[in-house]
Parts: sequence; structure tokens; C-alpha cells
Amino acid sequence: MADSPVEQSCPSQLPWLVGGSQVFGLACVVLTGVWMGHYQGGYAWDGTAREFNIHPLCMVIGLVFLYGDGAALLVFRVFRNETKRVTKILHGVIHLFSLIITIVGLVAVFDYHAKNRFTDMYSLHSWCGMLNCVLFCIQWVMGLTVFLFPGGTPMLRKWYLPLHLFFGLTLFAFSIANCLLGIKEKLLFSIMSTYSKFPPEGVLANVLGLLLVVFGVLVGYIVTRKEFRRPRHPEEEALSMHFKTLTEGETPNTP
Amino acid sequence: MADSPVEQSCPSQLPWLVGGSQVFGLACVVLTGVWMGHYQGGYAWDGTAREFNIHPLCMVIGLVFLYGDGAALLVFRVFRNETKRVTKILHGVIHLFSLIITIVGLVAVFDYHAKNRFTDMYSLHSWCGMLNCVLFCIQWVMGLTVFLFPGGTPMLRKWYLPLHLFFGLTLFAFSIANCLLGIKEKLLFSIMSTYSKFPPEGVLANVLGLLLVVFGVLVGYIVTRKEFRRPRHPEEEALSMHFKTLTEGETPNTP
Repeated sequence: MADSPVEQSCPSQLPWLVGGSQVFGLACVVLTGVWMGHYQGGYAWDGTAREFNIHPLCMVIGLVFLYGDGAALLVFRVFRNETKRVTKILHGVIHLFSLIITIVGLVAVFDYHAKNRFTDMYSLHSWCGMLNCVLFCIQWVMGLTVFLFPGGTPMLRKWYLPLHLFFGLTLFAFSIANCLLGIKEKLLFSIMSTYSKFPPEGVLANVLGLLLVVFGVLVGYIVTRKEFRRPRHPEEEALSMHFKTLTEGETPNTP
Repeated sequence: MADSPVEQSCPSQLPWLVGGSQVFGLACVVLTGVWMGHYQGGYAWDGTAREFNIHPLCMVIGLVFLYGDGAALLVFRVFRNETKRVTKILHGVIHLFSLIITIVGLVAVFDYHAKNRFTDMYSLHSWCGMLNCVLFCIQWVMGLTVFLFPGGTPMLRKWYLPLHLFFGLTLFAFSIANCLLGIKEKLLFSIMSTYSKFPPEGVLANVLGLLLVVFGVLVGYIVTRKEFRRPRHPEEEALSMHFKTLTEGETPNTP
């Protein structure tokens, strides 16, 4: 579906910002892997702390890295020459993977708690984290229903689009805040007595927190800058003009 | 400076959302006050834990409530009939108060640490919090320099405006994330052994965390919805058209 005016319209900053975001995002995944794999004893589905270790890794991969990439970064800003339908399906599929990995991460921590008779859902991290996951499910189902099912009328899509974008970005920021809460909780449960002596594990976890924030800011910036928007293809432009005539209002210019 | 077309353009949802945000914002301040005042022993500048208690209260008032209100809510969305210059000055002044209260909060915790020979700057909360405060100072100075000092040219303002808005909102979200981190840290330092038994203090602090998130979402929503923007006054419209003719581009339509 590529045509040259569309191909040439990619702003020069965008590849650098996208590349930078991927470096920071992957660094977050690697640091979480090293923290849980090296300092906290590795991974296993056996009811020990190694089962808990699956939880942070899944959340950083699912709820932050894949969510951030799938949210709009790779899909609506980077894949500039695909059709709108292809980008929408890709967006939904990446978020489906993100959702599945998030659910695995949730099951890991609840299963670990159950096997060790630990109380569930008492901490701020658990309250915020559960709210985050439930809202992510609702957001995904709403997006699928309105933008991909044939049921969503143009008027409904036009009304829902800004809400979908706002809550998508808000949930992404909330995911990162929840990861920071989780890092803090894990550190104080495991190395509280030595944390103030700057042990390597504490410094690594703090750096992980900062990298998550940088990844979040980069994704947020790419997603909200007007000039990075995926350009409309000629046939979408024609459809949009037609739609504008019908509604006498502004038309949706993303999904 | 009021004229009837401008006065009539206030969207019907806006007062409810603004009212709701103020209820949630004030509830955050009250809950923090009760937590520190009742459960943690009150306030005093005496080097004891009561000096530390000044820190969370100042941060919730300065870095969250006043920052959120001053950011754009009261100023660029609610005061719809004031001149642009008045709203800009109000914005700067509210943020100056916000900055001063934040600095008092910072001094309180550093002074408390110094008097008790506690290590500074080792935790994720301290790293993120310090970054937040430094960036807030930079953001305030940049805003003052570009939008209020006569030095800022229209081209510079046009270039900087979206960056100021993006980083303003990002810092607001980061402030709330830092409050959540601080709540978590305080809870685990003071009631770790009983936290899982749902004590009133733990539940109050968790509720405070959720209310901070709701306040953040409401402010974020009000600030980012296009239809809630403060309408241009006729004389700004005329200036803007003139500017548009000069630059042949889009013009800034907020500060």
C-alpha cells in the first residue's frame, strides 16, 4: 500500500526516538530478568519465591514493554505504509499478547500466595495493580468491539476514539507507576536492612525504576506528538472527506 | 474581559469534572493530614518523626494538589473569561507556591535525615523524587522565561508550547507515582508486620493512593480534552490570524 508521498513523510526525529525507546524498553526487560534470575534465585513454577519471580518479569514484558510498543508506537506511528485495517489488527494482536502475559504474571503471584498461605490484596501495589489489569481488559474489549467489530458505527468510533487514546495512555502511565510500587515492595521485603548501603541489587532495581520511567516518557512523547501521526492514505482521505460532509464535523484521524 | 459568546462556550461536563477533581484533590490532602497527624504522631520541626511527617503533607499539597490545579485546570480551562496574560501570570504564581511548598517538604525530609544520621538518596523513591523536583524547577523557569518574559519570540513560544504541555503533564503523572512510592515506603517502614491484617492505617493509606490516582486521571482528562480548552478572546483571535499570515503555519492556541 506504499506510495512515495506517504513514505517520505516520516519525521527525521521519529526513528531515533523509536530506536531509543526500544533500547530502554529492552534494557528494562533485561534488568528485570537479571534481578529476578541472578539476585532472587531464578524462575520455576514450584510455589517457592522462584514462582513469585515470574510475576515481575511478566509484568515488565506484558504490561509495560509490549503494551507500550503495541499501544501506538510500533503500530500507528512506525508502520506508516500499512493499511489502517492492518495496523488496527496488529494493535489488537500485540495487546492480546500483552494481556495474556500480564494474566500469567497475575496467576503466578496469586498461586505463589495461595501455596504459601500469604494474604492477598492487602497492599497498595495489589489494589492499584488489580485495578490496572481489570481496566486493561475492559480497554481491550472496548477497543475490539468499537474499532474492529463491524458493529462500531463511524459516530460511535468518533466519540470513543479520544477516550480510548486517553485511557490507553493513562493505563500505560499507571502500569509504570505500578512497576515502581512493585520494585519498592520487593526491595523492602528482601533487602531492607542493607538497602541504605547501596548494595548492587538495590542500585540495579533503582536503575530499573528510572529506565521504566524513561521508556514511559519516550513512548508517551512519540504517541502524543502530532507530527509523528501515521499519515492518512489517499483512499482514507477520500473516505474521510465523505464522512466529514456527512457529519459536518472533524473526523477521526487515528484508528 | 467577559463577552457573552465566550461565557456561553463552557461545556456542560466541565464544572462537574472540575468540582469532582477538587473533591478528590482535597480528600487527598485531608487523608494525608489525618494519616500523619493522627496515626504518625503529628507535626513539629524538631528532628523527630514528626518533622518527617511534614514531608508527605507538603508533597501532596504542593507537588500534587496545587500543581494539578495550577497546571491548567483552574487556570487555562476554568478561568475562561480572563485575558491570556492574567491566566498565564496566575498559572506561574500557583506553580511558584507549589514549588515553594515542595521545597519545604524536601528540606523537612533532608533535615530529619541529617538530625538522625540516616543515609540520604539511596532509595528508588528518593532518586525518582529528586529527579521530579529538579525537573519541576527547570520546567517552571523555562515557562517563565519563554511565556512571561518579553524575551520569548512567537516562534520560540510556538516551538516550546507542546513541549511545555507534554512535560508538565508527564511531571504531574510522575509526582503522583512518587507519592504512591512514598506511601508504600512509609507503610513498610512503619506497619510492615501488621499491614497484611488490614489495619485502619494501612487501609487509609491505600485509599489515599487510589484517590491520588483518581485526582490525577480527572486533571489529566480535563487538561487534554480539546473541547474544554479556554476559548480565544476576539483580540487574541485577531492577533492569531495575523501571526498565521506571517508564519503560514498553525498557531499556538493555549498559553
